[in-house]
Amino acid sequence: MTAPIGELADVLPGGSVLVDPDLLATYRYDSARDPRAGTPTAVVRATCTSDVQQVLKWASEHGVPVVPRGAGSSLSGGASGINGGVTLSLERMRDITVDPVNRVAVVGPGAITADVKSAAAEHGLWYPPDPSSVEMSSIGGNAATNAGGLCCVKYGVTSDYVLGMEVVLADGTALRLGGPRLKDVAGLALLKLFVGSEGTLGVITELTLRLLPRPAGAATLVASFSSLDAAVQAVVGLTARVRPSMLELMDRVSINAVEDMTRMGLDRAAEALLMVRTDTPGESAVEEIALIHEVCGRHGASEIYTSTDPDEGEALLAARRAALPALETLGSLLIDDVGVPVPALPSLVRRIQATAARHDVLIAVVAHAGDGNVHPVIVYPSGDCDAEARARRAFGDIMGAAIELGGTITGEHGVGRLKAPWLADQVGRDVITATARIKDALDPCGILNPGVILETGDRSPDPGS
Amino acid sequence: MTAPIGELADVLPGGSVLVDPDLLATYRYDSARDPRAGTPTAVVRATCTSDVQQVLKWASEHGVPVVPRGAGSSLSGGASGINGGVTLSLERMRDITVDPVNRVAVVGPGAITADVKSAAAEHGLWYPPDPSSVEMSSIGGNAATNAGGLCCVKYGVTSDYVLGMEVVLADGTALRLGGPRLKDVAGLALLKLFVGSEGTLGVITELTLRLLPRPAGAATLVASFSSLDAAVQAVVGLTARVRPSMLELMDRVSINAVEDMTRMGLDRAAEALLMVRTDTPGESAVEEIALIHEVCGRHGASEIYTSTDPDEGEALLAARRAALPALETLGSLLIDDVGVPVPALPSLVRRIQATAARHDVLIAVVAHAGDGNVHPVIVYPSGDCDAEARARRAFGDIMGAAIELGGTITGEHGVGRLKAPWLADQVGRDVITATARIKDALDPCGILNPGVILETGDRSPDPGS
Repeated sequence: MTAPIGELADVLPGGSVLVDPDLLATYRYDSARDPRAGTPTAVVRATCTSDVQQVLKWASEHGVPVVPRGAGSSLSGGASGINGGVTLSLERMRDITVDPVNRVAVVGPGAITADVKSAAAEHGLWYPPDPSSVEMSSIGGNAATNAGGLCCVKYGVTSDYVLGMEVVLADGTALRLGGPRLKDVAGLALLKLFVGSEGTLGVITELTLRLLPRPAGAATLVASFSSLDAAVQAVVGLTARVRPSMLELMDRVSINAVEDMTRMGLDRAAEALLMVRTDTPGESAVEEIALIHEVCGRHGASEIYTSTDPDEGEALLAARRAALPALETLGSLLIDDVGVPVPALPSLVRRIQATAARHDVLIAVVAHAGDGNVHPVIVYPSGDCDAEARARRAFGDIMGAAIELGGTITGEHGVGRLKAPWLADQVGRDVITATARIKDALDPCGILNPGVILETGDRSPDPGS
Repeated sequence: MTAPIGELADVLPGGSVLVDPDLLATYRYDSARDPRAGTPTAVVRATCTSDVQQVLKWASEHGVPVVPRGAGSSLSGGASGINGGVTLSLERMRDITVDPVNRVAVVGPGAITADVKSAAAEHGLWYPPDPSSVEMSSIGGNAATNAGGLCCVKYGVTSDYVLGMEVVLADGTALRLGGPRLKDVAGLALLKLFVGSEGTLGVITELTLRLLPRPAGAATLVASFSSLDAAVQAVVGLTARVRPSMLELMDRVSINAVEDMTRMGLDRAAEALLMVRTDTPGESAVEEIALIHEVCGRHGASEIYTSTDPDEGEALLAARRAALPALETLGSLLIDDVGVPVPALPSLVRRIQATAARHDVLIAVVAHAGDGNVHPVIVYPSGDCDAEARARRAFGDIMGAAIELGGTITGEHGVGRLKAPWLADQVGRDVITATARIKDALDPCGILNPGVILETGDRSPDPGS
C-alpha cells in the first residue's frame, strides 16, 4: 500500500492504528480460516462514528480496500484480511444501553451478542437471535450477516430485530435509518438492505434492536427415527399445526460422534434425532408437546422423551450441544451452511452422504430442520493438506447440491469471500447485475469489503480447487 | 404522449390496452383521491409476466412514465394517474396456489388479500397480515407498500411474509428473488428492498408468501380510561410482559362518533378505549387476559370487559369496527397514517387535537397502539373545498408533529405522491440522496412511478397548500 497511513494515524485517537506485523497477523483470518486470506497493511480500531467516517473518507481518497470486522467469527471469510487493505475493527465500540420503556437496546457494533442478550435480560426483556457463536460474535457482525440461530424457526432472524441503524457509507457520510418505531414504511427499506450486506455497502456504527418480553418457559422433546424421511415428515406435520421455538435435527454421523464421546446412550442405529422445543405459556406448552409427541409417534419415532422441567429439558438437548465438541475430537472442521425447502431435507442429506464418500471425508449433519437450514460439518485430519483440499471440494459440492434442490448456498453464515464463487449459480446473472448496480451506486470506488458477495477476480487461486 | 401506444397494443393480448377516456378516468384516482392526480394516456391490463416486460421495455425506449396499480386502494396516492403516463394494472394476474407441505402461497400480484387469506385457511393455514383494506386491496399492493394491519403487533408486517418474488425491472428484466426457503442470506437483501418500494424500483409479478399454522383462538379485553396517559402507560406495561395479537386504541372523538351512531353504551367521557387480544393457546389465553386486566386496572381503567368466547370477543370489538363507518356519516374522510415510539403516543394525540382546533376540522384517532402507529381520521364537510383544503393542511401538520416526536410520516400506508414532500424532513437529505442513487441504479430513465417516494417537482401546485 502506497497510501499514507500516517495521515490516518495523525487524525485518529492514539493507539487506533496498528501496523505492528505481529498484531496485523492476528487480523488476517476469521473463523473461516480462508487459505486465500491476505494480511492487512494496517488495522484501525475505531472508537466512535467519527473515526469510521475518517477512515472511509481517507480510504475513498486513496482507493484503499477496507474490511470491516467485528469479532472475526465469520465462517464464510467475510472479515478475512486483504493484502494492501485496511481492516477496520469495531471491537472497541461496544456500548449497550437498554431502554425498557421503548423496549429497545441501542448498541455499538462491537458489543458481543451474548452481552446484548444479558443486558436485555436484566430488564426482564429478551433479544431473541441466538447464533451458535452468540458468546463470541459481535452484534454488528450479526447484523452485517443477518445472523440466525436456533430460535429463528419461531422468532425470525437478526433483520427482524433491527429497528434502527447508523451506518457510514464509503464516502464517509453517516446515515441514520429507522429508529425505535415498530412500524415505519417511509421510503425505501434501506435499513433492511444494509442488514445482511456483509460490509459491502457501509459500516454499521450503531444499532437499535427490538426486544421482546421473555417467554415464560419451555417444554422439550427428543425423538429418534430409524428413517430420515420419517423424521422430516414429522417436521412437516408438526409445523403445520404448532410453532416450535426450536426444531433441530442430527444425522447418524453426528449421533455416533456424540455417543462415542459421551456414552449417553443414544440410539446408534437411528438415522435422525429430532429435538423440539415449544415456549407457549403455562399448560399450553404441555398440550403442544403432547401434540408433537403424537405427530412423532405417528411418523414412526422409535424413542421419544419429553420434559417440561427446565433442567431436564437442558439435559435432553445435551446431544445437540455436544455435537461440535464431539466432532472436534475427530479432526479439523469445516462448517458449511446451506438451506433447502424443508421437504427436500432428506434428499440434501443423502447428497451430503454421497459427497462425503466421493471425497473421502467425514461429514456430520446438524440442522435447524424447521427452517431447512443445514450445517454439514466436514471433518478432516488436522494438518493433512490433501484432506483439507478434499474437504474444501466437498464444501463446494454441498452448495451445488443445495442449489440443485432449490435451496441456498447460505442460510445464515453469509456469502463472504468463501462462497462468492457460487452465488451466481444460485441467484442467476441478472440478480448479480442488479446487485452490482446497487453496490456501485453506494460504493462507486469499490473500497468496501471487496470480494465479499460479489467476486472481484483478483484473488490467488483457491488451493482447494 | 407522443409515444406510439399502438405498438404496445399490437404485441399484447387483445383487450389489454385501454384508451377509452371513460375507462381511463376510472384509473385516475386511487383511494387517496389526490387532487393532483393526472389521467393516464393508456391503461394496460397485464395478463402475465411477459406482458409486464413488454410494457416496461416499451416505456423505457420511449421514456414513458409507468404507474403500477393493483386494486387502487392506496391511501397515499401511490397508484394515482400521471398525465402522459401509462397505468399498468395487475388486476388480471390473480392466481393463488397454496402449497401446504412447504407452507407457502404462490400468488399473482392482483389477487385480493382476503382471497389469499381464504385460500390459506382452506388448508388450515394462515396468512397473518390484515390491513383494514384486506377485502379490497391487492397482495401486490400490500407487498409494494409493506402493508401492516392489526396483527402486526405480534406477527409483523407484509415484509415478514414475503419469501420470494418475481419482479420486472424498468428495462424489462425479470428477476427471481428468494423462494420457499425460511432462511436465505445469499447476497444483498434485494427481496426486502423491493418490498415497500411502492413500484419505484420494479413491478412485482409474483409473490411467494410464508404461511403459519392458524392460532387456536383468542381472548379479548376492552378497557376504557379517563386519561390518555394512563391508557398508554397500560400499553407500555402490558407489552413488557406479554405479546398481544391486537392492541388498538380509540380516542374520545372516535368513541363519541361510534356512540352517536350505535348507542352501544360507550363511556362518552373516556379519553381512550383500549382493545386487546391474545391468541396464545388454550388456558394460557385466559391467564394472559387476566394479566392484561390486572395491568389495565392498575393504570386506572374505569371499565374493563373480557371474554374468551369468540362471538362475545367480536362483539367487544364492535366499537373499533364501527369507527370508520361512524365517521363517514359525519362527512368526507382523509385518513392519515403516522407513527411514533409508543411512549410518545399521548403527546402525538394532543398535537393532533391542537391541529384539529387550529384548522377547524374534526380529527378522530384510531391507533394500532402496540406499534405506535396512529391513524388520525380528518373529517370535513363533503363538497366544501375550503374545508378540504384545511383538512389537507391538517394532514401535513400531523406528519410534522410525528417527525418532531421522533416518529414517521407513514407507518403502513406508504409515502406515495401525497406524502413525498415530507419525506426529507423525516429521513434527512443524506438518506434521500442514497435513495436516489439506488433508484437511479435500477431505473436510470426514471420511468417507474415517478413522484412516488422521491418528489419529481413537476406536479401541479397542491390545492391545499
